[in-house]
Amino acid sequence: MIKKLLLGCLCGGAVFTIGILIGHYGIAKSSDSAPSWVKDVAKDVDESLIQQFLSEVDNVNIQENLRELTKVPHMATTEGDEKTVDFLLKRWQDSETGLDQAWREEYKVYLSFPDPSKPNKVTVVNPSETVLHTVREKEKPYTPDQEDPSVVQPYAAYSPAGHPRGKLVYANQGKPSDYHHLNQTVDLRGTIAITRYGGAGRGAKAINAAPYGVVGVLVYTDPRDINDGLMSDSSETYPHSWYLPPSGVERGSFSSDFGDKLTPYLAAKEDTYRIPTSNITGIPPIPIQPIGFEDAYILICELGGEAAPSEWQGGFNCTYNFGGPGFKPTSAFNDSEVKLDVYNYETQVNSSNVMGVIKGSVEPDRYVMYGNHRDSWVHGAIDPSSGTSVMLEITRVLGRMVKQGKWRPRRSIIFGSWGAEEFGLIGSAEYTEEYFTKLSERTVAYINVDIAVFGNTTLTAAGMPSLQDVIFKATKQVSAPGQGSTSVYDNWIRHNNRTSPTHGTIPSVWHLTGAGSDYAAFVHYLGITSMDLSYTFDRTKSNARTYPAYHTAYDTFDYASKFIDPGFVSHQAVARTAGNILIRLADSLVLPFSCADYAESLEDYLKTAVTSYQEQLQAEKISMEPLKRAVASFRKAADHLNQVIQSSDLAKETPLKVRKINDQLMLMDRAFLNPLAFPDKYGFRHVIWASSSAGKPTFPGLADAFANAESSGQSSDWEKVHYHLSVLSQAIEGATNMLVDVI
Amino acid sequence: MIKKLLLGCLCGGAVFTIGILIGHYGIAKSSDSAPSWVKDVAKDVDESLIQQFLSEVDNVNIQENLRELTKVPHMATTEGDEKTVDFLLKRWQDSETGLDQAWREEYKVYLSFPDPSKPNKVTVVNPSETVLHTVREKEKPYTPDQEDPSVVQPYAAYSPAGHPRGKLVYANQGKPSDYHHLNQTVDLRGTIAITRYGGAGRGAKAINAAPYGVVGVLVYTDPRDINDGLMSDSSETYPHSWYLPPSGVERGSFSSDFGDKLTPYLAAKEDTYRIPTSNITGIPPIPIQPIGFEDAYILICELGGEAAPSEWQGGFNCTYNFGGPGFKPTSAFNDSEVKLDVYNYETQVNSSNVMGVIKGSVEPDRYVMYGNHRDSWVHGAIDPSSGTSVMLEITRVLGRMVKQGKWRPRRSIIFGSWGAEEFGLIGSAEYTEEYFTKLSERTVAYINVDIAVFGNTTLTAAGMPSLQDVIFKATKQVSAPGQGSTSVYDNWIRHNNRTSPTHGTIPSVWHLTGAGSDYAAFVHYLGITSMDLSYTFDRTKSNARTYPAYHTAYDTFDYASKFIDPGFVSHQAVARTAGNILIRLADSLVLPFSCADYAESLEDYLKTAVTSYQEQLQAEKISMEPLKRAVASFRKAADHLNQVIQSSDLAKETPLKVRKINDQLMLMDRAFLNPLAFPDKYGFRHVIWASSSAGKPTFPGLADAFANAESSGQSSDWEKVHYHLSVLSQAIEGATNMLVDVI
Repeated sequence: MIKKLLLGCLCGGAVFTIGILIGHYGIAKSSDSAPSWVKDVAKDVDESLIQQFLSEVDNVNIQENLRELTKVPHMATTEGDEKTVDFLLKRWQDSETGLDQAWREEYKVYLSFPDPSKPNKVTVVNPSETVLHTVREKEKPYTPDQEDPSVVQPYAAYSPAGHPRGKLVYANQGKPSDYHHLNQTVDLRGTIAITRYGGAGRGAKAINAAPYGVVGVLVYTDPRDINDGLMSDSSETYPHSWYLPPSGVERGSFSSDFGDKLTPYLAAKEDTYRIPTSNITGIPPIPIQPIGFEDAYILICELGGEAAPSEWQGGFNCTYNFGGPGFKPTSAFNDSEVKLDVYNYETQVNSSNVMGVIKGSVEPDRYVMYGNHRDSWVHGAIDPSSGTSVMLEITRVLGRMVKQGKWRPRRSIIFGSWGAEEFGLIGSAEYTEEYFTKLSERTVAYINVDIAVFGNTTLTAAGMPSLQDVIFKATKQVSAPGQGSTSVYDNWIRHNNRTSPTHGTIPSVWHLTGAGSDYAAFVHYLGITSMDLSYTFDRTKSNARTYPAYHTAYDTFDYASKFIDPGFVSHQAVARTAGNILIRLADSLVLPFSCADYAESLEDYLKTAVTSYQEQLQAEKISMEPLKRAVASFRKAADHLNQVIQSSDLAKETPLKVRKINDQLMLMDRAFLNPLAFPDKYGFRHVIWASSSAGKPTFPGLADAFANAESSGQSSDWEKVHYHLSVLSQAIEGATNMLVDVI
Repeated sequence: MIKKLLLGCLCGGAVFTIGILIGHYGIAKSSDSAPSWVKDVAKDVDESLIQQFLSEVDNVNIQENLRELTKVPHMATTEGDEKTVDFLLKRWQDSETGLDQAWREEYKVYLSFPDPSKPNKVTVVNPSETVLHTVREKEKPYTPDQEDPSVVQPYAAYSPAGHPRGKLVYANQGKPSDYHHLNQTVDLRGTIAITRYGGAGRGAKAINAAPYGVVGVLVYTDPRDINDGLMSDSSETYPHSWYLPPSGVERGSFSSDFGDKLTPYLAAKEDTYRIPTSNITGIPPIPIQPIGFEDAYILICELGGEAAPSEWQGGFNCTYNFGGPGFKPTSAFNDSEVKLDVYNYETQVNSSNVMGVIKGSVEPDRYVMYGNHRDSWVHGAIDPSSGTSVMLEITRVLGRMVKQGKWRPRRSIIFGSWGAEEFGLIGSAEYTEEYFTKLSERTVAYINVDIAVFGNTTLTAAGMPSLQDVIFKATKQVSAPGQGSTSVYDNWIRHNNRTSPTHGTIPSVWHLTGAGSDYAAFVHYLGITSMDLSYTFDRTKSNARTYPAYHTAYDTFDYASKFIDPGFVSHQAVARTAGNILIRLADSLVLPFSCADYAESLEDYLKTAVTSYQEQLQAEKISMEPLKRAVASFRKAADHLNQVIQSSDLAKETPLKVRKINDQLMLMDRAFLNPLAFPDKYGFRHVIWASSSAGKPTFPGLADAFANAESSGQSSDWEKVHYHLSVLSQAIEGATNMLVDVI
């Protein structure tokens, strides 16, 4: 009986247990079982996928991309440019390694070209109209591709056509102070000024000259500024080294604004209203033409007049004189004038952006953007094709993962291959104008890689301070080319570092204060958190302003592969770094933005402002306290938000809570926008990173207004300083409001 | 044995079943049971809660709120205003019926007041300096509260002080065309112009006069425009009816811009930069003073000169003459002049907004806002306390539900009791300036209920077309006061309807094109989807411009409770309607916005534009095709999005998909903002609803530019028309981009 009872109990127990098991595992709970998306919404970065990405990025692929992209010159809107459009589309529409979608978008933009049938000329003409010297019209070719008939003649885009003629003077870098100084010795009316690149924007050299009565301007690259003084192409310069040959000429846009010049703050569609060309601002009012140092040498070393100051002296083995005006009495050019014949013309032409996307699986309405321009001046091996080659390798690796079903990012990724950047960041600017609200509301970050490799010494990066952390994380995972097991990070910190109150010694990440590449519209017009990355040369070993073949006919595959990055390993390091960051931005559950690092930058700016301005502002009865309070509030809110993020297990929280925090992080930068802060440059709306001419590492509107008030002493100018203090304080308070508890 | 076996089986079966049940229900699945938030994120409107809300809204409570709010005059920043601040805070901080949090926010604002020690005067003075007539300085009291010493003397806020004196002329409504017409007959230099309210903004009557040499302006309310012609206070006007007594004077702000005048586009904090007062725009350049029709009658009926045109004639039983200038030769005032002594002064004072919130449970970072101003000119029973009484009843009912734990909205609700509205919407404008980005990124909608009840005939509503549907839904659930079982909707459609291509006959919802109340900064500066609601009188039975006691000392509790809404049932209907809409906006899983209704409004505007402008634009070679294409794209995208919403069971989808759609709906209106479209009124950024002077129901920038070009005939003005067409087309395309698939 006991046995039976025990047996019965055992059996009953077993049946009971089986029942429990079936009930628990065998029957799906209808009411409270988790919907399938619960796991999806917690998607976070997969470190093994990043490792896979890093291992698949291939230097030879990048090399072959570059070879293809640089077969012919591809200046904006030319046949060569069209070929690169097709190439990009073909790659991004590839069924095995392409993106989800790729397409082109066109804008009708206002560009400036030289006339191939009437090349621009610069001559030295004596009083009896004999031409004593003619400046070289095209650069001397060293390789067959440099002889391509579609190599554009060196010219200054947006220089007006014209035929000015006058006595030559040397105006250093063409800064306002240079002309001011020169004008104290030489009557500049009716002169032609020769200037060297650097110190002032290209177009500014002519804009600054015109008020003094200068009628034409020449500009050249001084060997001291680009070649560490070297000049001879028989042994020193390319094709023997990376240095610029004597006939090399830097082309460029001489417009100082960005975006299409006829459709400011509107997208340049076919039917868009165009302003009259006479209303265009920021372009040279007088003809200007760039020349090589080979010719500049001949002109400058013959100049008469007083010797220019020592800071004006360059790399030529002669004294740089002001000009009499004109040449020395002892010169063969004595009494001769310099004549410019500029035949540039302006035209409205269609320029394409090529766009491609990988759709996000969880938050398709959040965009991580990655872009570079596609157009070059000539073959553009380094500028911009090094960046395009890197972008294509990133899209190949990611595209394949997507096509193979191995990966789909949490957020959408949008790639942009911008057109007509060289003429003033036009493709990217028009894109931001067309899609303003959509981009502004949905874009998490923009990554720009234009010139991917200036040299093979170290990574360099610029960006919003909130991105510093993710840049560091990525660079620690990539090995530095040619440095054994050293990481890009460790190599970088060796070359460029600073001391952070929070982090100790860290690599220096620069600020995106200028408009040097396509990040400009994203940063300044849209207020999108952005960064710009490249590998560069050792600035302790060369004083070159940039890589010497910049914007010349020598920027070819041969040059890039022999002298900039043999083996394409620096390209590879940039692709790995940028791609790593891209994946992290696209996949992280919580955006890897550090507002505390932003606070540190604001504190730095504040410190400089207080040191530089406070005493004088007190004398003017203008208080800096609101600005100090604003920066302190920002710091407090940033630290608090950081703490909230770190102390929660957000993968277990409602996805709306995570989204809330991500929106705070994403949108904080928008609060720094003020479309009325800079009435003479509405494209600059970000009051922390706007361009500034005051040259102080501090808040730009404040710095410029202060410099202006200090120089004029007028009370209305001091009022503008007060105005900018209010704009800044309220913008920073507005950003703080994005970070504090949302209710 | 069989029995035992059966029993064993039964027992075993029972045990097995119990096991299954325990296993299924009793043990939580660790890996795939739904997190507790899965249900929460699907929270949607609870119709039974709305019914509960409707039943709890009490008319007697509203009446008692109004009694309390109107005890003393509460002009902005006065002691009476301060009392209402305390009252609001006490109610919103109540432990049983209050909100989660309530607080005050202060701005230092620039206001204009009359000097109590030197009251403004208007006199008729003859050549021998004898004062023949003095205009009444204060309104005649009929009840004790109208004798309150803090009743402010009638004055024109922001009129400069001054003592102009001259011959009187009658200038109708003071429109540009009125002065132009008058000036063809009378030399206006040195004259005083008397004008009637209506037709032009208050300040505009003086701004338009100054160019003609007019030195001072009077303004009064003509009995034809406000009293259906009635004039006698012995039987016809208040205290016998709602009509304005003869001595009643409409006060008001005579500034035409909104927001603090010294801190344009910046929040008026203590330390904010102030522009010099000489740079203030949009205020009267010459003294202006409002008077009652009792005195206007005496002045106008004595005027000499030609008879004014019939449209200029008003309700007085005499012919309105232009003025000789001055009075008739037969008048006792012959040869006399009118003298204004205006002693207004400007001062910077602290004005408070009172803010209160109910935190959202699911999407705390989405705000539904509800607001009204608190300040009045005198007792302000109708303007604005009817609205404040309604708001307080809504917050009482909702607050109690929250405190009792019965309800918490999906989204956060923010209530605002704005200060200094009467001086130019200052409190709300400063608030939007201070919290620009935060509000812009997070605010779903703004509901404004200022004057809740103008009369007790029908509801009237204005707002973005996307809100039409939710307004209709709510009004169908509220019964119309005094109409038995008729709904507010059915009553409304009887009084004001239109034919919609989509919906057939529906009530007319007006557009928020002006800046008549605190919605202005939300609509025009922030581009937030907004509405304004009230109950009003039967316009087929009265031609009154507004309720007759508007901005006078007669707008008291007595007046409101006897003549505007006896029993407070219209107040109750507004509270129920507005509260119903508020709950729907706060609780709906998918925002109840219809973009298709927005499309219909754009199509209406387009139709008017094409009919009115196309022929002439073709002659000027300006194409309307881009605008047509833009509206068509918007329609297509709106219909598509509607279809996506209707065809999905979003309660079962990932909350991020719902959020994505809600963000599309919420942010679409932002795409219509262009801060540069109207350089002379940057506060107006919404290119569809901006104010316009052209008087056409179409796109405002286009209409104004067209009117201007048509009148000047200059090609540069036609270019501006083209510019506005591009601005519009691109804004509408931008809005379309918010509605199409997000990637």
